[in-house]
Amino acid sequence: MKNTLMRWKLPIVCLVWQLAMIILFGVFIRYDEESDAHWSVTRMSQNHSLLENQFYFRYPSFQDVHVMVFVGFGFLMTFLKRYGFGSVGFNFLIASFSIQWSLLMQGWFHSLDFSDGKIKIGLESLINADFCAASVLIAFGGVLGKVSPVQLLIMSLFQVTLYAVNEFIILDVLGAKDAGGAMVIHVLGAYFGLTVARVLYRPNLDQKKNESVYHSDLFSMIGTLYLWMFWPSFNSAISNNGDAQHRGVINTYCSLAASVLTAIAVSSFFEKKGKINMVHVQNGTLAGGVALGTAAEMMLTPYGSLIVGAISGTVSTLGFIFLSPLLEKYLKIQDTCGIHNLHGIPGVIGAIVGAVTAAAATEEVYSREGLKAAFGFEGRFADRTPSVQGGHQAAALCVTLLLSVGGGTIVGFILKLPFWGDPSDENCFEDDVYWEVPGEEEAALYSVHYVNSPPTKPAVNGDTQQ
Amino acid sequence: MKNTLMRWKLPIVCLVWQLAMIILFGVFIRYDEESDAHWSVTRMSQNHSLLENQFYFRYPSFQDVHVMVFVGFGFLMTFLKRYGFGSVGFNFLIASFSIQWSLLMQGWFHSLDFSDGKIKIGLESLINADFCAASVLIAFGGVLGKVSPVQLLIMSLFQVTLYAVNEFIILDVLGAKDAGGAMVIHVLGAYFGLTVARVLYRPNLDQKKNESVYHSDLFSMIGTLYLWMFWPSFNSAISNNGDAQHRGVINTYCSLAASVLTAIAVSSFFEKKGKINMVHVQNGTLAGGVALGTAAEMMLTPYGSLIVGAISGTVSTLGFIFLSPLLEKYLKIQDTCGIHNLHGIPGVIGAIVGAVTAAAATEEVYSREGLKAAFGFEGRFADRTPSVQGGHQAAALCVTLLLSVGGGTIVGFILKLPFWGDPSDENCFEDDVYWEVPGEEEAALYSVHYVNSPPTKPAVNGDTQQ
Amino acid sequence: MKNTLMRWKLPIVCLVWQLAMIILFGVFIRYDEESDAHWSVTRMSQNHSLLENQFYFRYPSFQDVHVMVFVGFGFLMTFLKRYGFGSVGFNFLIASFSIQWSLLMQGWFHSLDFSDGKIKIGLESLINADFCAASVLIAFGGVLGKVSPVQLLIMSLFQVTLYAVNEFIILDVLGAKDAGGAMVIHVLGAYFGLTVARVLYRPNLDQKKNESVYHSDLFSMIGTLYLWMFWPSFNSAISNNGDAQHRGVINTYCSLAASVLTAIAVSSFFEKKGKINMVHVQNGTLAGGVALGTAAEMMLTPYGSLIVGAISGTVSTLGFIFLSPLLEKYLKIQDTCGIHNLHGIPGVIGAIVGAVTAAAATEEVYSREGLKAAFGFEGRFADRTPSVQGGHQAAALCVTLLLSVGGGTIVGFILKLPFWGDPSDENCFEDDVYWEVPGEEEAALYSVHYVNSPPTKPAVNGDTQQ
Repeated sequence: MKNTLMRWKLPIVCLVWQLAMIILFGVFIRYDEESDAHWSVTRMSQNHSLLENQFYFRYPSFQDVHVMVFVGFGFLMTFLKRYGFGSVGFNFLIASFSIQWSLLMQGWFHSLDFSDGKIKIGLESLINADFCAASVLIAFGGVLGKVSPVQLLIMSLFQVTLYAVNEFIILDVLGAKDAGGAMVIHVLGAYFGLTVARVLYRPNLDQKKNESVYHSDLFSMIGTLYLWMFWPSFNSAISNNGDAQHRGVINTYCSLAASVLTAIAVSSFFEKKGKINMVHVQNGTLAGGVALGTAAEMMLTPYGSLIVGAISGTVSTLGFIFLSPLLEKYLKIQDTCGIHNLHGIPGVIGAIVGAVTAAAATEEVYSREGLKAAFGFEGRFADRTPSVQGGHQAAALCVTLLLSVGGGTIVGFILKLPFWGDPSDENCFEDDVYWEVPGEEEAALYSVHYVNSPPTKPAVNGDTQQ
Repeated sequence: MKNTLMRWKLPIVCLVWQLAMIILFGVFIRYDEESDAHWSVTRMSQNHSLLENQFYFRYPSFQDVHVMVFVGFGFLMTFLKRYGFGSVGFNFLIASFSIQWSLLMQGWFHSLDFSDGKIKIGLESLINADFCAASVLIAFGGVLGKVSPVQLLIMSLFQVTLYAVNEFIILDVLGAKDAGGAMVIHVLGAYFGLTVARVLYRPNLDQKKNESVYHSDLFSMIGTLYLWMFWPSFNSAISNNGDAQHRGVINTYCSLAASVLTAIAVSSFFEKKGKINMVHVQNGTLAGGVALGTAAEMMLTPYGSLIVGAISGTVSTLGFIFLSPLLEKYLKIQDTCGIHNLHGIPGVIGAIVGAVTAAAATEEVYSREGLKAAFGFEGRFADRTPSVQGGHQAAALCVTLLLSVGGGTIVGFILKLPFWGDPSDENCFEDDVYWEVPGEEEAALYSVHYVNSPPTKPAVNGDTQQ
Repeated sequence: MKNTLMRWKLPIVCLVWQLAMIILFGVFIRYDEESDAHWSVTRMSQNHSLLENQFYFRYPSFQDVHVMVFVGFGFLMTFLKRYGFGSVGFNFLIASFSIQWSLLMQGWFHSLDFSDGKIKIGLESLINADFCAASVLIAFGGVLGKVSPVQLLIMSLFQVTLYAVNEFIILDVLGAKDAGGAMVIHVLGAYFGLTVARVLYRPNLDQKKNESVYHSDLFSMIGTLYLWMFWPSFNSAISNNGDAQHRGVINTYCSLAASVLTAIAVSSFFEKKGKINMVHVQNGTLAGGVALGTAAEMMLTPYGSLIVGAISGTVSTLGFIFLSPLLEKYLKIQDTCGIHNLHGIPGVIGAIVGAVTAAAATEEVYSREGLKAAFGFEGRFADRTPSVQGGHQAAALCVTLLLSVGGGTIVGFILKLPFWGDPSDENCFEDDVYWEVPGEEEAALYSVHYVNSPPTKPAVNGDTQQ
């Protein structure tokens, strides 16, 4: 039996890290121009209307992204019959840490003001912090139920760092575009998480608890639907104001609708007796959102979006049916939530779609101004052509893949150290290792009903009858 | 025993229709001016600010409507104890198909650009597509649990078409106003769905499974609350920018609040021992939103809204208590979700309120400009008076009623064809006909607990005790 | 056995009050300038763009607040194993009444137009009405499960009145700032509710039903997460447009993130075996939002927000562990939802943080214009200094505390009158007193599983096996 006692470890890690955040925020983080009280002065001097504050351009999208991160990812993972607290609760914990840490990391890499050494944050920083948290939560899906909260916090610490480094390389150095994060969020999160899961492979894992029950599947659908509905906001939240945000929404909306039909079609075709499998509805339907992560804001056309959505919904669902068992058998990757199918493959598809769409861009379609705005052909990148841009998009995918596998390997071995309080094999996918589960009698009864109860507790149900 | 095998039927219908959507989108659908990359050029030539893109006027409302369609309607129907997957899942499937198909149908009827033969879509098109899907989902509520997913897709195909035709007649030809869709969405959806349910009448239906359990009623309340909270967005989403949207929100907010009090009052008064019935809380409280579907954007006044809300909450709840049993007994309409009480009657009330409010409009109340803007007294309708407008509103209700009953009859008989895989009477309201239901042991236990188990499985509970 | 029959009482109270609302709305309430059809005229005369309607500045925030009131508070309270209907349903009922009544009360006190004796309402009025409802729902949390719906309606009637009076004194007379309502909403709601709970003390209350089960804790997390995610909107919804709303969001976002880490740290440290307690995750994580209720819009700085969030998350969770048992034992306050820990203490912290932040404001930090705008140093308050403002903030806290305890005492004794249909001790925390609970057999089974069944029903489980 492993020592999973969290009394000292978890409080200390949480408190030390929170203290570090306070100190680092104190040294580095300040309001940006539009959230500072001096804005009333600057605004008047620039003759701006009150509405020309980025707050009004992006706040609705921000809140949708926020819901996706905390309710979407959190509830999506509640499908496990006895890991609902861990799914929602650890999601809450590591996302709350990650957004703080990524405000710092992304600030250092992207928006440090060298004149005063401060990071100036505004609403767009919060959106980017939520994006980074999303990537962390994707990786969480790969190790769900098999790690301790302390391991999750360690993993988040490193992954946020890796995220900022990768983002810096592919957006700032390579000049790639990735508004909805097909690469920076999904590919990175998925392959980082899968590599960690590989290193933490448990040969004797009891897969019987890695299952859903009726109500847990409904809770999970809450997560699915919020992710699905708000994905158009996700893919357009940091796009240029105006037509790019507008177009990002339309494209993602179309793509997601197509994914639903193909995911359900594939599920019904391959599952026994032609029945639909909830796992595919919960996940495959979302592939169209991931697959537009790069190209949503581009002139992909609505029918192009439908094609991408239809293909990615199909491929993702096929992945759940055929690929996941092979990954576990041959590559020894135990992917609890199927992140390879929902974020890995569709993320790679998204990166490729983005590269091709960028390479195919013309002045006729975008207008001269539009092309410059869409791909940032300014400053250092002023003389880029669309086809060169396409090449850099492809390079960005390669960089992301390399960094995520490399980073995942290192972090995986760090997490293997024996003092992080990870659960024993038989306690995986069980809330009561780390959570007070309510009602002793009820808990026992639940263990009769929902979990295969150990033979040493035979009389529970009988007791209540006397 | 009927053949409910979906292995071929469902995948083929889904894939063929998705392929058709891709081809038709490719031929017909393009971005509109404000979502096209050329907008940066047009915008500057017209000296518009970045914010003057309809995206910023309507995106928050759109997302609220989107939540109502997918979470609101989806979870509202999860009240059935063993049909949660079907409620949320089929809702997801048919809404995803309907929004694609209605972008085409509504485009052909309303916004085809005859210069190039293309439909130009923007955010407002997406809102209208969601509205159309809402109408389809209302009809779904009438046949919930009694049809196969293939039947639902067929039904959606026809209903979207009917929706576009009806909308064209009453909005474009008759010049009626119906911003929140009391007629085009609610009356059409309800009476179409009820007519289909009538044609598909099952005399030997086992109503014991048509019931809720404790947790399923809570899931259903998620649907109710999202519908209730976001209804102000629904009724104002496509209203004129400015005061009309603002007013639509205020009126709907007031009306809905009044519905809650009267629905609960009526429930407690008529139910046994004065207890409140969750069915009425889940449905009657929403009647005030439906009943403002036409008049929300008009100068109905806040107290006028309270009156409409109070009356419709009362009538809707009385409908559940007294009318639904009569409909089943005498008209042989088995209305699973009570759509007649939530959408039918309140929709008719809403159409009448709209006609009266329009007829009573004066220049004093609206101002000369305001009257023109509110009722579209321009172009072909430039010399209309409010009372003439009221008459046309009433005519629009009649047209909608006729079309919905006529269309429902035809579609009902199409759905009666014997090869769509509909469930047998004893499998109605049961998820496991079309869904893989998790955990065999659990499923068996659930059937003991939640459903009257057949006498041939007596030992399940006993087994777990040994 | 007490008479809990609601057949006459509840319908009559609901209907009489709704009728009163209709009459009073008819006499007093009209659209404000921006929601009236004449706006098209005024707008043009003032050369405003269509977007310069408060609707576009505040509608997204309003909808977030709306979700917090109806889903957030409603589902937060569903943690009780057998009181889910009451939590969500009574929340729905009293919030719907309170928003109507507070439109009137707040209108009379704040926005009565003396030229025509009318209250002009717009979107900001709806936000304020929702705020007032939130305060009522906080008090509801203190008496949850121990009162009848009629008592709740009576309590709401008085509390809304008290809210408007207190708001008038501290905002209009004292000139305090309290944009997110640390005082007007949280302190008032908490101490009013606790005082009522004290007066209604039940010495023989069976606390065994005052517990959660596994799924009810997950439902409760829906409430927690929506409150947490949308709290930035809550604290900035009625702030000045522009940088103040923007800053309110950033500060609250930071504070809430810090609360999550400290709440979980404290929970794990003090609970047995270092396990995390869901009660603390459901509540302590939100303390950072309450504690920024006054200062969110001020120049608190992001690290200041982290400090406040970290402290309040800690204190709130410690309150649940150590203070609540003492309150019950020595002060005889049975605080069902722990409102003292979530709203009481953090609200007081928030008021103090607000007073200190205000007192410390300088022209350097805010700019001259910014200082005037932030603290309303205009008109009657034109020659106030920040330190004087700080003093008035502190005075406002004292006034609020006095009024809430005084009001709570009076209302408590009114609610003690014997004809309001309150439940007997053994029926507390039980839905089936006031609600039709579905499925008799199931209900009986549930009482075996989830509740300690009385010895007189031994054969229920056995029965179903025959």
